[in-house]
Amino acid sequence: MPNGKMILAAFFYNPQGDHRLSWRHPHAPGREIFDLDYYRRLVGEAERAKIDAIFIADHLGIWDNYDSGVAHYANARLEPISLVSALAAVTKDIGFMVTASTSYSEPYNIARTFSSLDHISQGRIGWNVVTSALTEEAQNFGLDGNIDHARRYDRAAEFLDVTKALWDSWEDGAVLIDKSSGYFADPAKVHYLHHKGEHFRVKGPLNVPRSPQGYPVIVQAGSSEAGKNLAALHADIQFAVIRNLEQGLAYRRDMNERLARQGRTPESFRLLPGILPIVASSKDEALEKQAALESLMIDRVGIDLLSSWAGVDLSTFPLDGPIPALPDLESFNGWRTWLKLIQEESNKGLSIRQLARKIANTGSVSMVAGTAAHIADQMEEWFVAGAADGYNLMFPLLPDDWMNFMQQVVPELQKRGLFRTEYETGTLRDRLGLARPENSFVIPN
Amino acid sequence: MPNGKMILAAFFYNPQGDHRLSWRHPHAPGREIFDLDYYRRLVGEAERAKIDAIFIADHLGIWDNYDSGVAHYANARLEPISLVSALAAVTKDIGFMVTASTSYSEPYNIARTFSSLDHISQGRIGWNVVTSALTEEAQNFGLDGNIDHARRYDRAAEFLDVTKALWDSWEDGAVLIDKSSGYFADPAKVHYLHHKGEHFRVKGPLNVPRSPQGYPVIVQAGSSEAGKNLAALHADIQFAVIRNLEQGLAYRRDMNERLARQGRTPESFRLLPGILPIVASSKDEALEKQAALESLMIDRVGIDLLSSWAGVDLSTFPLDGPIPALPDLESFNGWRTWLKLIQEESNKGLSIRQLARKIANTGSVSMVAGTAAHIADQMEEWFVAGAADGYNLMFPLLPDDWMNFMQQVVPELQKRGLFRTEYETGTLRDRLGLARPENSFVIPN
Repeated sequence: MPNGKMILAAFFYNPQGDHRLSWRHPHAPGREIFDLDYYRRLVGEAERAKIDAIFIADHLGIWDNYDSGVAHYANARLEPISLVSALAAVTKDIGFMVTASTSYSEPYNIARTFSSLDHISQGRIGWNVVTSALTEEAQNFGLDGNIDHARRYDRAAEFLDVTKALWDSWEDGAVLIDKSSGYFADPAKVHYLHHKGEHFRVKGPLNVPRSPQGYPVIVQAGSSEAGKNLAALHADIQFAVIRNLEQGLAYRRDMNERLARQGRTPESFRLLPGILPIVASSKDEALEKQAALESLMIDRVGIDLLSSWAGVDLSTFPLDGPIPALPDLESFNGWRTWLKLIQEESNKGLSIRQLARKIANTGSVSMVAGTAAHIADQMEEWFVAGAADGYNLMFPLLPDDWMNFMQQVVPELQKRGLFRTEYETGTLRDRLGLARPENSFVIPN
Repeated sequence: MPNGKMILAAFFYNPQGDHRLSWRHPHAPGREIFDLDYYRRLVGEAERAKIDAIFIADHLGIWDNYDSGVAHYANARLEPISLVSALAAVTKDIGFMVTASTSYSEPYNIARTFSSLDHISQGRIGWNVVTSALTEEAQNFGLDGNIDHARRYDRAAEFLDVTKALWDSWEDGAVLIDKSSGYFADPAKVHYLHHKGEHFRVKGPLNVPRSPQGYPVIVQAGSSEAGKNLAALHADIQFAVIRNLEQGLAYRRDMNERLARQGRTPESFRLLPGILPIVASSKDEALEKQAALESLMIDRVGIDLLSSWAGVDLSTFPLDGPIPALPDLESFNGWRTWLKLIQEESNKGLSIRQLARKIANTGSVSMVAGTAAHIADQMEEWFVAGAADGYNLMFPLLPDDWMNFMQQVVPELQKRGLFRTEYETGTLRDRLGLARPENSFVIPN
């Protein structure tokens, strides 16, 4: 928590909001989700509120493993990297954390793009590193099914080693542009990787000079063992699913131990739990808003989503009966974070239909519904206790919940001294209290 | 030539200009080539002049196969797709033709990005399809050397088949966003590819709806046999190296025959030769400007460039002696366009040093130096004769030659009725007189 201030990231995957059928809400956007102006308005409001960063999730395919996806799920959207570059051009201070997959891209391409984005935005870019757990994604990239979990994370670790080395391949002083001598670069400060690993062979150097932040802010969101170890090795920020204060404190302790094993301090790492904030003028109105969203759910979508997370087609079981046996977590190749959650929920005596509704409506993340003061209370509690360095704000309905938060909760947090009232100078890393990385090719004096 | 008007694209690869050592010129930009503002200024001036599109070339590596590259060549630059997305956000009418490689990327990623860019820009995007001929590029993507020429083009053709099918995978009417029924999409209008080819297996559909132009404008620039055949099959625009009127007319006839074999009309295809315009107040001043640029050349860079294009290390031969035997064109895996040019030049009795200076200074493309009226005369001649539908403007020095052209030659062309004075409404395709592609999944009535 840099300068004792909370870090706030405004998240979206569905541009209609994080509730899975929020697109059906009367206030939800229609076709304007395919236009830049819609996002410009959202991001503009967040920038006026001095939010740290926009966080955009991503998948490399539509969600259609089960029947209801194509018809009922809001599967069509813009690609986030091109969106973020456009938004960087029309903003000045706010940061962007954007998702890209290590499983279905090449390190040279990703290193170039993020370095270029960091130059274009003058140091406001973060990369949310994902390994892509969906079968639908694998099938768009030459595979029959998902890559083995361990292999995916192994590739991700090597991918990060390579991209970091590419970002370092031009030392900060490498570009000379000395017109009279004819030296554009100092060859002694331009480095080759000659990387030959299990997954990649990359000669280098990159063709983009080292960017304002050195590396983009590295974000990681998986909380499997492999995910937490990758985060401890490489991430500056982790976006985590935390459901109560005790769990948050335990998560932070666990991460601190993993960081220490990598020779890192707790200060080099920021933990951002996701929360789903619904602002209203009273607790009752907040619950009404929540109920209105839940009324949009289509049962079949809930069952299919639960099936997809569980790795079992639950529609073939009696829907009012109990949850059947679930796959073993340690050998599961899908999204272990979600399977674990379902395993925990399945012990609570809910029927398939009940659990499907619960999961589909609220996801896995804590809903915080109420007045601005009530929401600020809850955010303050975890933050002050050390269970969170800030939050990833996953608004159930866009643009309403986003706008309400920026206009009502942010001023409340500012009044309490918990959040900035002006952007500090510097890069996104500077604002997050994260050091600019040393260059691995430079031997310290 | 839509509405009898010339098509003009303003090209750059080096943001300092197309002369290889233009970065040394006193008027060339310095570190501002890493900032968005530099490009915003260039593109803003082109948009005021009503230019059709910006054309950005690209390589996936630095040029360093020979010694002089790292020190003397301007190898550090921004990645063009992220740059174009940012520029689309701050412009309104001008188009963008941006390079991406079919050899070192995946069709799903490229299809998404270009579709998204087409939405963000509201129909102003073109894709310059390249197969990446440099050994330096191959070595950044797991290979020891360049991919076989035929295989590269074979992959490119399949890559284009897949990306076009992905762009068609959401029919124009597929997105319903019907909030009351809960149908986000019409499943009958969302299509699977189930593509299983030699190079790719892609299930689809894309997760971006069909974009304003249907497909981005497809541009191709290779003039080998394989390149011309790929263009006849897939391209809307070809950027060609043409050095005189007769050659241009012959090239167009040849392309028309190839188009006919694919069932295409000449009107579906635009031929844009590259020219290097240097505007000055007199012919003598233009030649002085050219000489000033040539004085910046470093001999070693010229020899190394010639070696790179020829596929032979010429620095090991006597530099004032004749050009040695060159590789066979038909089995050459590098850039056949350039080898062919060097083969032609090598019969003219020049020494290695002389040819190196000539190639390094002027490249392969026609220099058009003189007053605005003189340049307009030459542009008019090829255009009226049918040897060119317009031009790819490869300015030797940026920003000077670019700004001078926009401010002096464009008004001259407008005065002659050869170029638009206002942007027409519609997409880039509309302005270029190119039809919006039919959807391959829709059976015509």
